Amino acid sequence: MNAGIITIGDELLIGQVVDTNSAWIATRLNSLGFAVERILSVSDTEQAICESVNEAIDRYDLTIVTGGLGPTSDDVTKDSLRRIFGGEMITDAQSLELIEIFCSKRGIAVTETNRKQADVPSSCTVLPNYFGTAPGMLFKKGIHMLVSLPGVPFEMKALFENEVTPLLKQLPVEGVIIHKVIHTFGIAESNLSDVLNEFEKSISPSIKLAYLPDPSGIRLRLSAYGNDRKLLSQQVDEAIEKLRATIPQYIFGYGETSLPEVVGKMLLSCNATVSVAESCTGGKISHLIVEIPGASSYFNGGVVAYSNQVKENLLGVKHQTLIKYGAVSREAVEEMAVGSLNLLSTDYSIAVSGIAGPDGGTPDKPAGLVWIAAASVNSLEVEKYIFSNDRSINIQRASYSALNMLRKLLLKEHPELKNIFEKV
Amino acid sequence: MNAGIITIGDELLIGQVVDTNSAWIATRLNSLGFAVERILSVSDTEQAICESVNEAIDRYDLTIVTGGLGPTSDDVTKDSLRRIFGGEMITDAQSLELIEIFCSKRGIAVTETNRKQADVPSSCTVLPNYFGTAPGMLFKKGIHMLVSLPGVPFEMKALFENEVTPLLKQLPVEGVIIHKVIHTFGIAESNLSDVLNEFEKSISPSIKLAYLPDPSGIRLRLSAYGNDRKLLSQQVDEAIEKLRATIPQYIFGYGETSLPEVVGKMLLSCNATVSVAESCTGGKISHLIVEIPGASSYFNGGVVAYSNQVKENLLGVKHQTLIKYGAVSREAVEEMAVGSLNLLSTDYSIAVSGIAGPDGGTPDKPAGLVWIAAASVNSLEVEKYIFSNDRSINIQRASYSALNMLRKLLLKEHPELKNIFEKV
Repeated sequence: MNAGIITIGDELLIGQVVDTNSAWIATRLNSLGFAVERILSVSDTEQAICESVNEAIDRYDLTIVTGGLGPTSDDVTKDSLRRIFGGEMITDAQSLELIEIFCSKRGIAVTETNRKQADVPSSCTVLPNYFGTAPGMLFKKGIHMLVSLPGVPFEMKALFENEVTPLLKQLPVEGVIIHKVIHTFGIAESNLSDVLNEFEKSISPSIKLAYLPDPSGIRLRLSAYGNDRKLLSQQVDEAIEKLRATIPQYIFGYGETSLPEVVGKMLLSCNATVSVAESCTGGKISHLIVEIPGASSYFNGGVVAYSNQVKENLLGVKHQTLIKYGAVSREAVEEMAVGSLNLLSTDYSIAVSGIAGPDGGTPDKPAGLVWIAAASVNSLEVEKYIFSNDRSINIQRASYSALNMLRKLLLKEHPELKNIFEKV
Repeated sequence: MNAGIITIGDELLIGQVVDTNSAWIATRLNSLGFAVERILSVSDTEQAICESVNEAIDRYDLTIVTGGLGPTSDDVTKDSLRRIFGGEMITDAQSLELIEIFCSKRGIAVTETNRKQADVPSSCTVLPNYFGTAPGMLFKKGIHMLVSLPGVPFEMKALFENEVTPLLKQLPVEGVIIHKVIHTFGIAESNLSDVLNEFEKSISPSIKLAYLPDPSGIRLRLSAYGNDRKLLSQQVDEAIEKLRATIPQYIFGYGETSLPEVVGKMLLSCNATVSVAESCTGGKISHLIVEIPGASSYFNGGVVAYSNQVKENLLGVKHQTLIKYGAVSREAVEEMAVGSLNLLSTDYSIAVSGIAGPDGGTPDKPAGLVWIAAASVNSLEVEKYIFSNDRSINIQRASYSALNMLRKLLLKEHPELKNIFEKV
């Protein structure tokens, strides 16, 4: 079955908000067997909403709409849907009760604005919102189903998981889609494409390979479409085995994962701790580590040594080193890594010093130059990188490169860790 | 004139990549006087691309297409555009030269795959790409203009700024759009909507007010549409004056700005420095500060004190405090803030300790409980917050709340700073 996603809001069309809801919904719809054909963002006017919803009814089996349900006067989705699906506006008793409970929990008065959020078209089935004040709504027209959800991401997600997913699971689904993702780091897209040229020719024609590059690495996605789940699954698994044989040094994980998660699992598995000394990445590496739930088991902490004074006083980088080689040098980043290991009493450490840009570069040391070290009690690995002139990209690429150096150091010292990611 | 944006790629439709290009392009098109009507993501098949491009030619004056120009075999945009706009595939000499320079700078061999990226439909005008290997293309059909750009964000942005913007500036534009944004922090959307009820009724009907909430605050957007730029501009300025009189305590900036940037400007302006002691936010606050170019003028560094050991050994939090009150307490966060001030020798500091969740909460101290302190030599402000059960949202909300506490402390100690943001 096919599906479409419509996100409503002028903030999307003037670029003030990036639409993250669609990607999240698309992932969920895919895993439920729906092929998402289009993702569309439109203005929050009745005309734009009605036009796009009517198109969607013709085009898809299922449409998910988000946004335009807020308490403010710029939200007109409910009136537009009532025009298309019919009925009159009525107050939904359960939603009103949920709004009253929601406000009383937070110790705020229930205003007329809040109360109006319980009004819905009589043509819909209400999907109760336990995390906010705007109820979800389910409409049907012929075989078409349309679900309208609030645009606030965590309310939308809770409603989708708790109310929409069970409904969709009951529907009969035709066809099978299998997506599998292989994560790589440390090779450019065009080089990877050349290396995988033979591989691409060798796999079954029902499988499609896509390259998804970003600063956290290049994800390779194998997608198989057909009717026989067992056969497709077997073909995809064979393709992954071939990939693994072709580029073992670049693959760091499979499926829904990330470098910070993989490194975390490795540290947990060998019962080791890590600390971080960051200059130009300014806390980004620590942040990536801490985003993973349970990081406290292996992460002691870090020092953001932005000024030279902090590099000297806290991390023990020698004054002479900073004078002779500068803060952005092999020597300084080595001392930072060792300093972090000692100061924070950890088994491993990573350290970064570079010029994030756009300013601050010199002919010798241009913006984008970054030195990274990964250290343990027994090893000290250092690499020099030259990234771009873009501050934000340099911070991201340096952060993920540092995590990848730690991954490689862990693999070197604990070869048995290779096996914890054998299964896809 | 109206415009549409089409982003191409299966990775968008299965939710593996969030489309950030569209928001960036939409901002630029708006400032050039184009109203973006729709943003559409479609699959990278010839059928989907041709269908959506033909719709766009009928619907808009200008279409911007991104994606599907990479070196890999899943990229079919060029063939699809050749089918629509005609011509044959030819090798563009300038692009081939740029590709050769690009590869030689990086010390990599020019492969057949790279070389093929210089092939373009003869019906297009080539927009040279100095930052990557896929050239941009400009097509015309009747009065319609279509621009095809690579999907890699920084290549797309460079091409848009350097090649597309000058072209669009030459076009005659009808109608005027004015958007102005006012940034607020510290009040919930439904409360803000109630407080601004009278304000909304009082402004000119040609002005629309929108609420854009996210963890970094609620942005209020005033949009005016019409033909008389001077009149609209005056009406919007009057509305902003009224807003400023209604909610002065919540407004922290205007236009393209953010809390980290505002706090940075305030610190620069009073020649003060700041340091950060982070537990549950794990480096996010330091990262937000360092993302602003030039942060080294006021940011010395920070300590990510994730373990209690680091809180004691580096920040000097008393062992007795951690035993008696716990790490997530008013007492601990106060000592962290003072410790950071001393350890990193700064004029101001912020400290955060909380339970990011989803695990680790207790009935007394649930996930989402966060204590935040802002300190100077003369003051110590502490606040208790209760956020949500979502780890990522808690880290973000705690980080921005901490920056807002620093902003308020700076305003208290340096009332003259109020004036640096008077101009919109």
